[in-house]
Parts: sequence; C-alpha cells; structure tokens
Amino acid sequence: MAETPVRFGILGCANIARKVSRAILIAPNSTISAIGSRSLEKASKFASDNGFPASAKVYGSYDAVLDDPDVDAAYVPLPTSLHLKWAILAAEKKKHVLLEKPVALNVSELDAILQACESNGVQFMDATMWMHHPRTAKMREFLSDGNRFGKLKSINSSFTYEPGLEFLQNDIRVKPDLDALGALGDTGWYCIRAILWAVDYELPKTVTALREPEFNEAGVILSCGSSLRWEDGKVATFYCSFLTNLSMDITALGTKGNLRLHDFVIPFQENVAPFYVASNSRFVELSIGCEPSPSEHAVTTDLPQEALMVREFAGLVGAIKGRFKA
Amino acid sequence: MAETPVRFGILGCANIARKVSRAILIAPNSTISAIGSRSLEKASKFASDNGFPASAKVYGSYDAVLDDPDVDAAYVPLPTSLHLKWAILAAEKKKHVLLEKPVALNVSELDAILQACESNGVQFMDATMWMHHPRTAKMREFLSDGNRFGKLKSINSSFTYEPGLEFLQNDIRVKPDLDALGALGDTGWYCIRAILWAVDYELPKTVTALREPEFNEAGVILSCGSSLRWEDGKVATFYCSFLTNLSMDITALGTKGNLRLHDFVIPFQENVAPFYVASNSRFVELSIGCEPSPSEHAVTTDLPQEALMVREFAGLVGAIKGRFKA
Repeated sequence: MAETPVRFGILGCANIARKVSRAILIAPNSTISAIGSRSLEKASKFASDNGFPASAKVYGSYDAVLDDPDVDAAYVPLPTSLHLKWAILAAEKKKHVLLEKPVALNVSELDAILQACESNGVQFMDATMWMHHPRTAKMREFLSDGNRFGKLKSINSSFTYEPGLEFLQNDIRVKPDLDALGALGDTGWYCIRAILWAVDYELPKTVTALREPEFNEAGVILSCGSSLRWEDGKVATFYCSFLTNLSMDITALGTKGNLRLHDFVIPFQENVAPFYVASNSRFVELSIGCEPSPSEHAVTTDLPQEALMVREFAGLVGAIKGRFKA
Repeated sequence: MAETPVRFGILGCANIARKVSRAILIAPNSTISAIGSRSLEKASKFASDNGFPASAKVYGSYDAVLDDPDVDAAYVPLPTSLHLKWAILAAEKKKHVLLEKPVALNVSELDAILQACESNGVQFMDATMWMHHPRTAKMREFLSDGNRFGKLKSINSSFTYEPGLEFLQNDIRVKPDLDALGALGDTGWYCIRAILWAVDYELPKTVTALREPEFNEAGVILSCGSSLRWEDGKVATFYCSFLTNLSMDITALGTKGNLRLHDFVIPFQENVAPFYVASNSRFVELSIGCEPSPSEHAVTTDLPQEALMVREFAGLVGAIKGRFKA
C-alpha cells in the first residue's frame, strides 16, 4: 500500500537546503509543500531554482510555514543559534522536526528541543546524512565481528576542508552570533559522531582538548581536536578544521582487524562508496613484508545518502501519522 | 672503482638480526665478517641458518667481535638496556655503529653514545629502515610542494600489532630490565619518527600523553599515545600498541593537500610501495560528492629498504675509511 508522502516545509534558503530539497524530491515517501524565508523574493527564487513542485507554497516568514496545515514536517537549516527557537516552535505547531547539525549550541538547548518534540508527539531527527548510507551499516557489521575486527582499541577521525577566503570572512559558520561552534560544530560534529558510532554510543570517561585550538578574531574555532578515553582503555582522537584541505577519515583499530575510509561524511561518488579492511594481519617470514594488505569493499546505493535519510525520517513520521489516524 | 665492502660484526642473535644479516649480504658494499653471542653454539647456528659467508668468524662473546681487526662496523641488535654499554664499547674499539631502535632508554644515554662515536671518529646510524625507502623521498617531495600539499596542519600516525601471547609473556620488549620502553620504544618510535620527519625535525612546543596508557604487570607500556603541538598551530597525534591488529599509518593533512599510507614501517610488498595523495580537493555542485579522490603513487625499489639502509651506512663508513687512508 503506497504511503501518503510526508509533506515538508523548509525554513530558510540556506545553501545546504538545496541539497536536502533535492533529497526530499528524490525520496519516494516525501514531498515539499512549502518554503519560507524572511524575503519572499528569495524564497520564490529558491523554489524555482530547485525544482519545487508547482503546488509548493512560498512564504515570507518561517512562522507561515509552521502555520500551514499542509506541512507535516519542518526541515530546519537555520543558523545554530536559531535552532532552539524554531525547532521548539515547530514541535509546538505539531510539525515533525528534521534539524540541521550541529543541532544546538549546547546540551541543555538540545534537551529542550527533544523535550518539545517528545511532549508534542513529533519525530525528531538530526540531519547527519552519512548515518543513512548503506556503507555505514556494512561497516557496523565489520566492527561487530569478533573474528574480523575483535575489540575496538583506537579510533582516529578527521573532517577538514579549506572553504576559501570568502567563507572565512563571511559565512555564518565563522560568526559568534550565528554558528558559534565554528569548525567544531560544522566538522568536529561528524568526527565525534563517527567516534560515538564506532563505540556503539558508550560515553567516554574523559575528553581532553588538544592544546590551543585556532580561533578567528571573533573567537570562533577554526581548527581543534581532542582525545577521548574509555573505561576499558580504548582511545580516540579527532581533528577538525576550516584551514586544511579536505579530509573525511575514520581509522578504527581493533584487536583483530582494522577499518579505514576517507570520505565518510560525503562519499567521493554518489552511487558507490568504499571502505577498506584488513584482518588478522601478520608479518611474513623475516618481517620483510606483511599481509593481508587492506581490501576494498565498495557499497552501492540506488539513492544518495541524504535521500535515504529523508526516506527514513519520512517513514518514521508516516508511522506516527498512521498511528494517530488509526 | 669498486669499493672494498664494509665488514660487519654482529652482536647477538636477535630475531631482527636475521633480517639485517640478509640486508648486509644483499647490499653491494657490505659483508659479514663476524658474529658473537654469549653462546658459541647459538652464534654458529645463526651463521649457518642465515647464509653467512664461509669466511665469517663465529665468537662466543660480543667482546671478541669488537676486538676483531677484520670488523669495520658493529651491528647492535641487543636489548635497549644494553645499548649504552655495547655501542660505546664498539666506538671505543673504533667500530662504526649501526644501532637498533629504540637507540637508548633516554636522551642522556643517546648523548653518551653519540659522544663516543664522535670522539672516536666512527659513523653512527639508527636502524630505522623506512627512512631509506625511495618512497620516503618521494613523499618528502610531495610534503614540500607548496601547490600540492601547502603548509602542514595535522599528522596522525599509528604503529600497532598484535604479537600473540608468547611475545606478551616472554619477549624482551615486555621486560622492564631489557626493553623498558615497551610498545612506546618498539612501535611508538616509528610514529614519533614519522611525525618529526613530516615536520622536518622541528621540535614541538608541547607533547601531551594520552591519558592512562595500558601497562603489563611489570609496568611496561603495552599501548599509549600522545598529542603534540607546534608554535605555528600544527598538531600531531599518535597511537602505538602491542594489543591491536597491525596498522602502520601516516596521515598528513596540509592546507592544499593530504598524504596517506598504511604500511610506512614495513611495506606490504618488498619491491613496490604505495602512498596516496589528494590536492586542492573540492565538493562538487550541491555537495553531493567531492573530487579528486586520493590517487595512488607506487614506488618501486630494486633493493629492500633495509638493504638500502645498510648501503647508505656502508657508504658513509667507506667515505670515512677512505679519508683515513688518504
């Protein structure tokens, strides 16, 4: 039985909303029914530039989107400092919430958002796309394999890119009143998620910042890193930066194997994404070589990871809607 | 004009001496003229098992090797706690010194060894094989390229392996009176060298251990890590372990490019070794992919890296011998 598509309303015309709009239109169980911006003209241009269906409504405010009865779910790509207000308001208007990352400026803000979603019976999801790529599930299988990977001992992750001068001067991600977490919120978010994902969300015993992050003049982090340690002795380190050429690495080392990939956040290619593993490695006689060398596992996907994210979210929303109807 | 081969005397029958003996016999400007062990029988068996020339002398002590006038250079693969005594004695007997790593238990010991070599006019070299692989020079070129790599911002290195129960109970590298530096000396040595190599031997401003290394019951390190930071903001982290499947990684991130390899200590294959680079990476339109993906550079070598090390050492020794003859 075909589901009724979940109807998204989009708050604002952020650059990332272009990618997610495409994903909403590609996913089989979702559609776009409205977009709002502080500028009606900007919203209108965004809708036409991004192939919105003719039925999509265009508003000159975020409120209007949340008041529209034809909107089931709000996609919120606003600057992080606005998440608390708009995510909570969306929940109070009974809109399901797909929230861009970093989801909030701190834990208490996120707790307030989650509380609002919970008490209003709406679904919450953070827009961390790579979690929904089938490669991620395949890697999980490997990490959970006692013979091929064993016990996790160490993880290193990096997400860095060099966005250019215009970004470093003007983007919301370098402005203390907009995305105050800077590179930590924009890229460190992924490293931390990768690490927590790898340890199955067990919280570390200690988290220690690497000394002296790099800041811009306004005090926003441009690069930083950290080391983490768990009760059982396993450790992790990460590094995130706006000042370094693109890297998106996870290296996970286990007692019996290891796993690496270099494009965990956004795969180099949309339809196929590799990861590399080796297990039970040995030096050959005389230690003049070693085997096996890492082998590539390529995982294909018929939908881009962001469309899989939307499909998953819309499925959860659909289930809630179905429950209320029943 | 063909050089007279440099004649090595080998102190002890350590496992690593098998690999280096082969290298001395393969290198074009070196040969083995003696081996000594506390057990004459063991030395004798080692010589025959490892294809020593019939002319090679076999001794029941290390002293006898150092007293042999047919020995130009001593290869010292003894436990680290014995390096101070035997490396200095070798220098005093005017033997050039190829010393296994870790070269000493601390800096003051190493200073004493270097001082002895200096004042006796003999060559010193630490036996860090990968420094001599042509891949290393090729990677240096890349790291020095302002357009392809730019300025170094972050390095992560690991050297881990899982040597098995017998090693973890009985090897010299887990004994406080023999190789007291444990995994830090055996594997962390390489990570630290890789990091210092990558920064062109500029010393860091701070070095901070990761919390709570893992120790054995005798207090020897089985796994540990560290973060380093330089004055200009660049950072490094490393992880070394006897409790984790084989990894030998360098990941160097620069402002314009990055470099990775996964077998820097001992290449998977003897005759060809790859590294992977990417430069000036960009997200494609809509950030639904990125390019370029890392490209492989395979570096071939006609001699194994340990034979290149011996050749380099013997060349330096030959130059000193030539100078004294002239």
